[in-house]
Amino acid sequence: MANKEHTDPVRMEKIVSLCKRRGFIFQAGELYGGLNGCWDYGPLGAELKRNLKDYWWRKTVQERDDVLGMDGAILTHQEVLKASGHVGGFSDPMVDCKACKGRFRADNLENLECGQKPSCKPGEHKNCELTEPRAFDLMLSTKLGALATDDDPKALAYLRPETAQSIFVQYKNILDSNRIKLPFGIAQVGKSFRNEINPRNYTFRSREFEQMEIEYFCRPEDGLRLTDEWLEARLKFYEEIGVPREKLHILDVPDGERAFYSKKTYDIEYEFPFGIQELEGVAYRTDYDLSVHQKGSGRPLEYFDEETKERFIPHVVEPSAGCDRTVLAMICEAFDEEELTDEKGKKDVRTVMRFMPRMAPIKVGIFPLLKKNEEQVRLCREIQKTLQPWMTVFYDDGGAVGRRYRRQDEVGTPFCITVDFDTIGENGPELQGTVTVRHRDSMEQERLPIDGLLAWLLDRIR
Amino acid sequence: MANKEHTDPVRMEKIVSLCKRRGFIFQAGELYGGLNGCWDYGPLGAELKRNLKDYWWRKTVQERDDVLGMDGAILTHQEVLKASGHVGGFSDPMVDCKACKGRFRADNLENLECGQKPSCKPGEHKNCELTEPRAFDLMLSTKLGALATDDDPKALAYLRPETAQSIFVQYKNILDSNRIKLPFGIAQVGKSFRNEINPRNYTFRSREFEQMEIEYFCRPEDGLRLTDEWLEARLKFYEEIGVPREKLHILDVPDGERAFYSKKTYDIEYEFPFGIQELEGVAYRTDYDLSVHQKGSGRPLEYFDEETKERFIPHVVEPSAGCDRTVLAMICEAFDEEELTDEKGKKDVRTVMRFMPRMAPIKVGIFPLLKKNEEQVRLCREIQKTLQPWMTVFYDDGGAVGRRYRRQDEVGTPFCITVDFDTIGENGPELQGTVTVRHRDSMEQERLPIDGLLAWLLDRIR
Repeated sequence: MANKEHTDPVRMEKIVSLCKRRGFIFQAGELYGGLNGCWDYGPLGAELKRNLKDYWWRKTVQERDDVLGMDGAILTHQEVLKASGHVGGFSDPMVDCKACKGRFRADNLENLECGQKPSCKPGEHKNCELTEPRAFDLMLSTKLGALATDDDPKALAYLRPETAQSIFVQYKNILDSNRIKLPFGIAQVGKSFRNEINPRNYTFRSREFEQMEIEYFCRPEDGLRLTDEWLEARLKFYEEIGVPREKLHILDVPDGERAFYSKKTYDIEYEFPFGIQELEGVAYRTDYDLSVHQKGSGRPLEYFDEETKERFIPHVVEPSAGCDRTVLAMICEAFDEEELTDEKGKKDVRTVMRFMPRMAPIKVGIFPLLKKNEEQVRLCREIQKTLQPWMTVFYDDGGAVGRRYRRQDEVGTPFCITVDFDTIGENGPELQGTVTVRHRDSMEQERLPIDGLLAWLLDRIR
Repeated sequence: MANKEHTDPVRMEKIVSLCKRRGFIFQAGELYGGLNGCWDYGPLGAELKRNLKDYWWRKTVQERDDVLGMDGAILTHQEVLKASGHVGGFSDPMVDCKACKGRFRADNLENLECGQKPSCKPGEHKNCELTEPRAFDLMLSTKLGALATDDDPKALAYLRPETAQSIFVQYKNILDSNRIKLPFGIAQVGKSFRNEINPRNYTFRSREFEQMEIEYFCRPEDGLRLTDEWLEARLKFYEEIGVPREKLHILDVPDGERAFYSKKTYDIEYEFPFGIQELEGVAYRTDYDLSVHQKGSGRPLEYFDEETKERFIPHVVEPSAGCDRTVLAMICEAFDEEELTDEKGKKDVRTVMRFMPRMAPIKVGIFPLLKKNEEQVRLCREIQKTLQPWMTVFYDDGGAVGRRYRRQDEVGTPFCITVDFDTIGENGPELQGTVTVRHRDSMEQERLPIDGLLAWLLDRIR
């Protein structure tokens, strides 16, 4: 659903540049020319991603009685993916260009970019001579075991193409080891792998990516209603992490475009600078998954309802979110260049990442007004020690305070604390023991007592 | 360093059984016969592992000014691992048995187990006819890209055999994007993969495993001192997560047994029920890693010291911990069977997982004394809502309270709260608004006001 009308390549370029310059995201293996479709998160990106995954886990698993977590292996038994239909069935249509020798996804040709000739630029492919589409297998495989030889079919294992399958194959173990009744969910966060034909749009379409998936098991008659309920819950989640409702598009996938077993699928899409693209799918998958694994494994996966004495395969609703995509959406949404005019009428542009405080990689900056003032430094370090068990704190004593604020603005730190001469009582007892707290978004400052800082901050960052 | 004197297979069997029964750990792909050397964490195992990783991150990255985090890709450019020496050099010595056709690690023959014949049991291998050892490659590989064909050498990529290499190859990007000076560290938690010849000892030696690694860069003259300091810091960490010092063994790896570039290596070993085995290595790796990547990539990886105006390749100290091994150590350490005698002299065995409260998968159980008392249930739900944003809470109203306590003991929940008739004021105003808090380890109970519960618990679980 890429929508050309919304694209803003200049903005995207600035975002990518900031992410590298400040250590959010680097290309994997960049030192050796880069590994296409793979990304490393630097110090700030790693914190941002952690915040997202932790908040998702807290809201999905910790704060709900009806959802259990799990953490499954990436390496996957080939029989699991044969039963699920992935082996031989998980592919994208691919075309070759006879002219430039590039390979492209046939369903995404408006975004053609040449993978081969450095001379070919995006949009220059009118001369491409495309072959007929053919299926390209998206699964990555490896060989396992000391007995593995190149031609031993038993040694073959896959890197999971989605976290969902490990939930389905452990559903019975989890049901048996927990006293839980329908409806209930199993949630997982973890890496998945797909051999994308054209990794593109920065981290958006990668070969290695992280998912946040819930498989919510229910009685058949509740499937459609729960799909709508999960859609609402997930939209609320995006608001809570700083992706506002008005930037999200809900696509009610029409008949014929859904997977054949799905009775309802919503795509939640976000207006990226490179187009409107999917963040999450909320799909009512009926009893397809557990049925194919019951058949494939020959082991009963039915649920016994104690009250109605019925035995049946539960249906499942799947809210499946892309973690890296959501990180990218948060970054794109946060990025802002604000025009400022100072008292003398001088214009300036302030780059500020307006992350929701709960998502911001650094929660608070702490500065002594004067680096050489030992008492100010000592107090800063004391405050830092108090806050650090609860949040990420960045101490900075380099350069003018205004410049330190700007450096924190650029990485989205919502609050900065300055310890000054008032704090240490040099201007009288009135403001002793208080600090300046400066707000990233409004740039306004207020005076707060040191004793109340932890509680004040915790209220605003959780 | 497996030490037969310390083994206790019966205890280990009980632990494995509890882990499956209560949903800590399941074999990956069990539904399809299992994938050897791969494990899935169930709801409680996933929480336990999360707690470990979070605490490690908090202590290593969040609470230290001198360590930055990162989160790198698993898929690794082949040139990275050629330069590091892994390609062609990362192998275990393997022997075959001509009799039973099993394959074994030649350096671990006292633990022989037959991989082939179901009739062969551990210890029955005196009749084995072993071949001469040969090198077996431990690296798992895959093919990437739409142009991948079986014989295209460029398509080859590896699943990283350690998280360390992505730290070394991003060291320069991280240095350039952060104003940080030597000594400083880069820390990472993530999955790594090794094609172990004989995965064994439950989750201890797996083909897919998670690491918690720090690469601490320093001036050459500080390497040995920092190695000793990190050893102490890591030993303290194990105490803080419930692995006591007296169960740890420190092996100062002698000359000739260390990697050729290492000037000092300590192995931190734990007394598992299956023998004394390594949890973590703390190795002073000199400038080996950055030097080979400077050479391999042809890009300068030197550090410029502003004060001394020197330019040099930093040395590195590496505390490298196994996450799954540490989870297993915590489980083994926590497992206890306590003999109890009740007032009537009746004997009973209480199974209790004595996890450190900060590591326990569930922090608090909450029970209404009487399931049918609406006011008790309402209050329980209210307390639950207050606590859940801060910790994992398990609500249980099934069966006698004593049985509910025991179920929580078995999964290591440190505190259980019971809302009873006193709480709701039915026995007078004196105890109204207070609850019973029962301690897992001592089984003692005390009366606490509802209002103070959150702070009381936070003090004890962080």
